[in-house]
Amino acid sequence: MAQAVNCQIVLASRPEGEPSVENFRRIEVPLPEPVAGQVLLQTLYLSLDPYMRGRMSAAKSYAKPVEIGGVMEGGAVSRVLHSRHPGFAAGEIVQGRTGWQSHALSDGTGLLKVDPKLAPISTAVGVLGMPGMTAYTGLLNIGQPKAGETLVVAAATGPVGSLVGQIGKLKGCRVVGIAGGADKARYMQTELGFDVALDHKAPDFAAQLATACPQGIDIYFENVGGHVWEAVFPLLNDFARVPVCGLIAHYNEEGPRPGPDRLPMTMRAVLSKRLNLRGFIVSDFAAQADDFRRDVAAWLKDGKIKYKEDVVQGLENAPAAFIGLLKGRNFGKLVVKVAD
Amino acid sequence: MAQAVNCQIVLASRPEGEPSVENFRRIEVPLPEPVAGQVLLQTLYLSLDPYMRGRMSAAKSYAKPVEIGGVMEGGAVSRVLHSRHPGFAAGEIVQGRTGWQSHALSDGTGLLKVDPKLAPISTAVGVLGMPGMTAYTGLLNIGQPKAGETLVVAAATGPVGSLVGQIGKLKGCRVVGIAGGADKARYMQTELGFDVALDHKAPDFAAQLATACPQGIDIYFENVGGHVWEAVFPLLNDFARVPVCGLIAHYNEEGPRPGPDRLPMTMRAVLSKRLNLRGFIVSDFAAQADDFRRDVAAWLKDGKIKYKEDVVQGLENAPAAFIGLLKGRNFGKLVVKVAD
Repeated sequence: MAQAVNCQIVLASRPEGEPSVENFRRIEVPLPEPVAGQVLLQTLYLSLDPYMRGRMSAAKSYAKPVEIGGVMEGGAVSRVLHSRHPGFAAGEIVQGRTGWQSHALSDGTGLLKVDPKLAPISTAVGVLGMPGMTAYTGLLNIGQPKAGETLVVAAATGPVGSLVGQIGKLKGCRVVGIAGGADKARYMQTELGFDVALDHKAPDFAAQLATACPQGIDIYFENVGGHVWEAVFPLLNDFARVPVCGLIAHYNEEGPRPGPDRLPMTMRAVLSKRLNLRGFIVSDFAAQADDFRRDVAAWLKDGKIKYKEDVVQGLENAPAAFIGLLKGRNFGKLVVKVAD
Repeated sequence: MAQAVNCQIVLASRPEGEPSVENFRRIEVPLPEPVAGQVLLQTLYLSLDPYMRGRMSAAKSYAKPVEIGGVMEGGAVSRVLHSRHPGFAAGEIVQGRTGWQSHALSDGTGLLKVDPKLAPISTAVGVLGMPGMTAYTGLLNIGQPKAGETLVVAAATGPVGSLVGQIGKLKGCRVVGIAGGADKARYMQTELGFDVALDHKAPDFAAQLATACPQGIDIYFENVGGHVWEAVFPLLNDFARVPVCGLIAHYNEEGPRPGPDRLPMTMRAVLSKRLNLRGFIVSDFAAQADDFRRDVAAWLKDGKIKYKEDVVQGLENAPAAFIGLLKGRNFGKLVVKVAD
């Protein structure tokens, strides 16, 4: 085995507002031995995703928070180091929710085998994994894109947004992608083929968005909230669908925000425009996993979709990389390369 | 003919905040003569409904506002006085959007014949008309009630809310009705058969609602907004559906409301609880009109549903009755009896 210890990143304290590296602690524990029915896994790629901010808070959400001192939760791609499970053999590549650590024991629950011939194995936590399935299920089930409609997607160079926009193009939509910075905007237009690419940091962003959507907005795939939502909201058409997938602009907020209170005005628009706002998480559509993998693997194989990864080296750098993710500093799917 | 003149209620001015009787004006115009292809109608019952407040404002909504000096819009049940239309005969009873006036010309567009043997003709603008169809389509399409779920409905003695709750009972839901005042609460429990009936004017209303919903809320049929929504919101379960049908508490509001801004917190709950907020108006489900009439007529015939009317005498009293409607002063479906 490569190491005699298991390196773990645990939650040292709960952040108030923005997380800092002090909220995390790196510890070493003895490498565990698998008992009968278990496998010992070596983490190769750890996925970093915005939802992890929610797990750091004690606030009630759709999943329990990580406990203080507990290993940070997360999906990872791993190699089977040692198997005492009939379904897995040493050397196989698997994907599972094994957390921010260099090694993990598993009884096989939730562990999926990864085919290294299909695509680079890191995509099992990216375009072919949870973020990809989030994009696919949220857009198709809630967004219900139709040819000729205008689809706006925020965080559009991230793993969810970039796939949302590309599936939108495949379905015949006019796609307007929004991300932070000129580099990202250029990438969306030249690589992803979006019709319009906007930088939400531009001072006249709201006006640019209005110009980019002369027919209004039929689908807004919500990943961010904040000032992007404010620019989108007045442009929503009658019967617009808003899959609410993430609200990264608000994850660090504590307590109520100053007024005016926009809720009554928002609800009046929901009524008069017959908007459909619907939150979801990927597991709500677990039954569609096979459809997702079949379709996205085929699109990848045919060169119809692209993906971009932002790879950070070393588990010890995961906290700083995660903090950067919440600020939009990553460019593409953020993964930590934990071992070769 | 009964009269040589047509009495009309026109919009004299746009209200700022609450409408007053000064925003309306009663005028008399010569009774028109139908030309070939037209019918002359005598209004028997005029329907008064909350949506009319929107038509009084210049603000953009799903329908154009009434122009200053224009006849107030509304649905009515009428008798054919004189027909030059092959599809209608003098003496027949019809329902159409003929407005706040004693007589109207029609070319038959949107005019539906009313069967006086089915139910009292006033129900053609009530339980068997637009409000009934609003309840039926909104609850079944968006609310999607399932046996054992908890359904909360506001304005629950009105024509929409009372049918929502009764259909909810037929579908096996636990139904909690909310209305203003002890009389209405008593009616919901003794006549409509709701499981719990609450008076939203009670000082401890929010606590009463929480007690009434020990399993949380799966469907909230939104007719009102305001403090009822505030009490409902924290009780919504994961995957709760919120058909947004009306927001009568906000119709008289002008401009933004003071903070805090509840929108970010609301959107976070949409995400974490995977709520579905969806606005609708009855015409969105026009294709289901036959289903609606078949089902509700059968339920009425079998005594499975009840309805209550609040009948005001005389077209000249329509403005004051409408102002009372916005304050919840009516008890049951508000109609104006314009002629015998």
